[in-house]
Amino acid sequence: MGELRLRDPGEIGVAILGAGRMGQTHIRTVAGIRNARVVVVADPDLAAAQRGQAVARAGRATAEPLEAIHDPAVEAVVIVTPTSTHATLIEAALRAGKAVWSEKPIALDLAETDRVVALWRETGIPVQVGFVRRFDPGYVRAKKLIEAGELGRIEQFRAYSRDTYPPPLEFLRTSGGAFVDMSVHDFDLARFLVGEVEEVQAWGSVLVDQRFAEAADVDTAATLLRFRNGALGVVEMSRHSAWGYDIRTEVAGSTGKVVVEAPQKTQATYSRRFGFEGDHYENFPDRFEVAFRLELEAFFRTLAEGGTPAPGPDDALETLRLALAATRSWREGRPVRLDEMTAGAPSGSPG
Amino acid sequence: MGELRLRDPGEIGVAILGAGRMGQTHIRTVAGIRNARVVVVADPDLAAAQRGQAVARAGRATAEPLEAIHDPAVEAVVIVTPTSTHATLIEAALRAGKAVWSEKPIALDLAETDRVVALWRETGIPVQVGFVRRFDPGYVRAKKLIEAGELGRIEQFRAYSRDTYPPPLEFLRTSGGAFVDMSVHDFDLARFLVGEVEEVQAWGSVLVDQRFAEAADVDTAATLLRFRNGALGVVEMSRHSAWGYDIRTEVAGSTGKVVVEAPQKTQATYSRRFGFEGDHYENFPDRFEVAFRLELEAFFRTLAEGGTPAPGPDDALETLRLALAATRSWREGRPVRLDEMTAGAPSGSPG
Amino acid sequence: MGELRLRDPGEIGVAILGAGRMGQTHIRTVAGIRNARVVVVADPDLAAAQRGQAVARAGRATAEPLEAIHDPAVEAVVIVTPTSTHATLIEAALRAGKAVWSEKPIALDLAETDRVVALWRETGIPVQVGFVRRFDPGYVRAKKLIEAGELGRIEQFRAYSRDTYPPPLEFLRTSGGAFVDMSVHDFDLARFLVGEVEEVQAWGSVLVDQRFAEAADVDTAATLLRFRNGALGVVEMSRHSAWGYDIRTEVAGSTGKVVVEAPQKTQATYSRRFGFEGDHYENFPDRFEVAFRLELEAFFRTLAEGGTPAPGPDDALETLRLALAATRSWREGRPVRLDEMTAGAPSGSPG
Amino acid sequence: MGELRLRDPGEIGVAILGAGRMGQTHIRTVAGIRNARVVVVADPDLAAAQRGQAVARAGRATAEPLEAIHDPAVEAVVIVTPTSTHATLIEAALRAGKAVWSEKPIALDLAETDRVVALWRETGIPVQVGFVRRFDPGYVRAKKLIEAGELGRIEQFRAYSRDTYPPPLEFLRTSGGAFVDMSVHDFDLARFLVGEVEEVQAWGSVLVDQRFAEAADVDTAATLLRFRNGALGVVEMSRHSAWGYDIRTEVAGSTGKVVVEAPQKTQATYSRRFGFEGDHYENFPDRFEVAFRLELEAFFRTLAEGGTPAPGPDDALETLRLALAATRSWREGRPVRLDEMTAGAPSGSPG
Repeated sequence: MGELRLRDPGEIGVAILGAGRMGQTHIRTVAGIRNARVVVVADPDLAAAQRGQAVARAGRATAEPLEAIHDPAVEAVVIVTPTSTHATLIEAALRAGKAVWSEKPIALDLAETDRVVALWRETGIPVQVGFVRRFDPGYVRAKKLIEAGELGRIEQFRAYSRDTYPPPLEFLRTSGGAFVDMSVHDFDLARFLVGEVEEVQAWGSVLVDQRFAEAADVDTAATLLRFRNGALGVVEMSRHSAWGYDIRTEVAGSTGKVVVEAPQKTQATYSRRFGFEGDHYENFPDRFEVAFRLELEAFFRTLAEGGTPAPGPDDALETLRLALAATRSWREGRPVRLDEMTAGAPSGSPG
Repeated sequence: MGELRLRDPGEIGVAILGAGRMGQTHIRTVAGIRNARVVVVADPDLAAAQRGQAVARAGRATAEPLEAIHDPAVEAVVIVTPTSTHATLIEAALRAGKAVWSEKPIALDLAETDRVVALWRETGIPVQVGFVRRFDPGYVRAKKLIEAGELGRIEQFRAYSRDTYPPPLEFLRTSGGAFVDMSVHDFDLARFLVGEVEEVQAWGSVLVDQRFAEAADVDTAATLLRFRNGALGVVEMSRHSAWGYDIRTEVAGSTGKVVVEAPQKTQATYSRRFGFEGDHYENFPDRFEVAFRLELEAFFRTLAEGGTPAPGPDDALETLRLALAATRSWREGRPVRLDEMTAGAPSGSPG
Repeated sequence: MGELRLRDPGEIGVAILGAGRMGQTHIRTVAGIRNARVVVVADPDLAAAQRGQAVARAGRATAEPLEAIHDPAVEAVVIVTPTSTHATLIEAALRAGKAVWSEKPIALDLAETDRVVALWRETGIPVQVGFVRRFDPGYVRAKKLIEAGELGRIEQFRAYSRDTYPPPLEFLRTSGGAFVDMSVHDFDLARFLVGEVEEVQAWGSVLVDQRFAEAADVDTAATLLRFRNGALGVVEMSRHSAWGYDIRTEVAGSTGKVVVEAPQKTQATYSRRFGFEGDHYENFPDRFEVAFRLELEAFFRTLAEGGTPAPGPDDALETLRLALAATRSWREGRPVRLDEMTAGAPSGSPG
Repeated sequence: MGELRLRDPGEIGVAILGAGRMGQTHIRTVAGIRNARVVVVADPDLAAAQRGQAVARAGRATAEPLEAIHDPAVEAVVIVTPTSTHATLIEAALRAGKAVWSEKPIALDLAETDRVVALWRETGIPVQVGFVRRFDPGYVRAKKLIEAGELGRIEQFRAYSRDTYPPPLEFLRTSGGAFVDMSVHDFDLARFLVGEVEEVQAWGSVLVDQRFAEAADVDTAATLLRFRNGALGVVEMSRHSAWGYDIRTEVAGSTGKVVVEAPQKTQATYSRRFGFEGDHYENFPDRFEVAFRLELEAFFRTLAEGGTPAPGPDDALETLRLALAATRSWREGRPVRLDEMTAGAPSGSPG
């Protein structure tokens, strides 16, 4: 990926597209990165863009993301806009020769994602996609143990995620559904930690809120995975959690096992009448506060040092394929092989 | 169950059938129970029976289990013999009017189990089956929380079990297979903690030892459960574990979650060069040492106080049905509804 | 210690002296030990002795402990009587040539303890004293790590104990006080895990109940220890604990540290509104349930195999010396060297 | 504290004095704070100051701290210079009417600290001192529980700290010694969580490195505290730790207890041959990474909102008094009352 030429790897000019809640988080993070300098913040809501500009001490704000991409001082683009705009903005940036960091997913269907992957391959411009868990120190350690062979041959993968709050109704209909929007994080970990999946079988239920049924979606699900290397996996999800953000991931092999879980947010334990108690993380922003910084630091470090940022569009594509296969398996009530899922095939996503 | 008449509820005469490794454990346990007195120990290996007799300070030993059952001083029979003999011995005891505690399972097929259940119903004699986990204080607390409504509506059940050592080959062929022999413990917990299951989907793999394939069995498996109340479940298993006996059970509901796991055997933690370590339980005898005593104490207490011991033959039957449904699902590669599994239907177990 | 001659090391005849609450626990335990057989249970309260007799299936009960000691079928004596009678009963047993297991302490003063130690040395009859923590698997592991050199040179010892319930007033006045009655367990661990102590400095307070002040005692205390090998130690205590039995012990060295603590009694964790909770042990009987069995098993195993049971009267003596030094330090408001504490010196214990 | 007049509470001009290792950390932190803008970085090592300037995108760098203080654009001064310069720089800033955040301590003796406190009181300018643990979320939660009365009457405080690496020799001689340099953090927590101390008794040893003895200092120590409210406390320290940064703090009361400890740095646990392992924090920069940000955010938030930043010079003074009392107690081998420790009295610090 040698196409990107930086004026000064120690001070990369950045456009941040999207100044909503998550955008503001990323703006603060980029502002604190040594070798990044925010040039412009773009959001159709110009006031939000200006708030971001002030936080980042950026030169200016704009309501036009494309205009920001084409600013000559901009060398890298950070995309935190609604999902439906990701592919278009990534393509615009690649055509303008700007490096890209984008929130996941690239798109909700394979055809559009394929198109971005093709352009990325053609241009050779670095693109990193925001699968944040890969940068959490716990998952990094799990990955290292596995790569060092400490687990032996991998036999089992298991993961569950319970989001604290169900998504708002308007988001629901464009989310891609339970598997594409939520289990996708665990599917990405499955691929990251174990390898490619051959076949899935997914079951779903509506237990939390009847609106999910109305949206042709589920709020509770479980998916069996068969990996190419023979290992079996299980991925479970729920759209709500009364006790806080609840995720746990395990990989078990012939000689060892690694568990990633952060059960206690505050390092204080209170003992009272014959028992003790502690607190859980509330939601992904507090659970992954550090990882949100680490993933962006890694992106800018890779830009400066050369190399291919990971996870890239190819990871986004394969993880999406897995999520769509699970969706189709749930809808059709049968096991689905990943090689069924091609861009030309009928979409498995709801709606 | 008023048919059993005890001479003295404070000193119930007991025959212990089976003086193998597990038998010796139960002999010691019964010898320490306040209101039980071991009258006779029976084992075809008379020397083993005599060792048991000495430990329990029992009156005598015999090589004939049926003869022990009919000893007039015997009021209750504890069965720790090979699985294939359970049904016959339970029936003999019931016909002789003796209360029964038997290791699980009653039998490996539904027809035989059905027959025992029918006789149990007819005679009204108390029978308790050895699903030991139900007596572990962790599972007892989980059950209480659920019954008290602390979890709200149950949404998810998940359980995994990894046995430390794969079973010997000779055992393998008569074990009933991965689901009937091993996942059965988690299936029983699923029914105990959540309720009856409607449908299952099981996947299996041979990753540990090719002998499992030769025995038409698997050594690694995962089963999806759909409960009648709509909840989803997952049960995973492996026949070996390099890091010790590894079981964990979770039940998640609309307002709370309970996790049962005993991660550390010895309450000592050793810190050294930038890290810490502790030990895991080696196997089920150390993990469930206390529960093995509690289940037998509960049996004799129920005999003395009146009431129906639980889990009973009906639990053994329904849990077997679930395990056989999983076996069939794995073999036939399709979801299997529990109501397919009747005594007349072709067996789903291997061989 | 070759003076004890057993008729059959596989079935040692035992007299149990004391059938109160703790006595009943030990009676059940001894009844379950393979190579021990309870011959007689003695207690001035004959009904209590008879209850113990029934549990142990012992030959007889008596109100006279001395008569039980002299029963020709008795080869070992287990003493669970009030503290003030320990020395006299141990001496009677030694003179009768019977092995002894006795609850700690031997006595509350050095002169009486010295006298028992002297007789023990003279007769060569095995005596084990009930410092139960030494048999808890956590402490056993700590000891092994230290002996294997895994901690390097020992630098720090720290321990605290909070008893759940304050003792009854009548017990208080004869208990020997906070240091002799309660911190003594941690003092024994200090000696067991680190070695002999050279000097102590103790502070105490009355925070729980004014009755402690009236008994010239304290209910809250902290003691500094200086070990002969240069290490520093701290032992803290409180006579009550609203959250259950609370003990924790740490030994830190130049290369590693070991912590012994059992924070969770039941292996179930309940998560609810943004937090989780578990239960603590209630009191020493549940915390040390296993160790109470292990210490008696060790005693009878040592009798059968030969060797000197530990901890013995010499340990009881040195641990008492430490507790009395702490008591004196608290009363006199100054550091006290252990070599000040001799049998002839004025007693440091309250009253 | 109404004397400070800010041009714009949303953008406070800051001089950072000190660009060493800790200084660079604070520079990055201040650069990321919303309502702070670094105007100038000062360090006698101008190149270090310029590196800090670049990171913070500050206007300029200087070798002269006093010149930085007097820069008209500077409204607040952050002091991360060597201890011996703290008092002089704080005084210069106060006289110039600039708010101050300073690393602890203000000075190593009471007279100099008293003088700063007096000037602070006279000027009414806000000063915050860097006792970072008070801002760790664990300690914040402990404080809240205590203030809410959840622990009832406080009975016991215990804390230990083991630093990973012993300090370099040159630092040792000017550090103030074990109690003033290291236990001071736990003494501050004692005051923060429980209240003022009346009397101390400290013991020390040289176990780690003979150089401590040569510097008339100790490397291992334990201090008993008697609080004014009657509670007892213990503070232990060691200058090295083979297993990483090791701190733990407990407060126990009549109805509850709170423990603050962060035993695992990375949220991944690795299970292997019959055991499990995880990692500890290496040192204070990783353990308190978040708290280092929170304490500076709190400072600038208080400046903007008005009010008195805490902990202030008065806290620094009282905590120093406690540390000097412990030092004197160790040197003189006797209990020392805090009211003995006045500015006019002979110094208790080494050298």
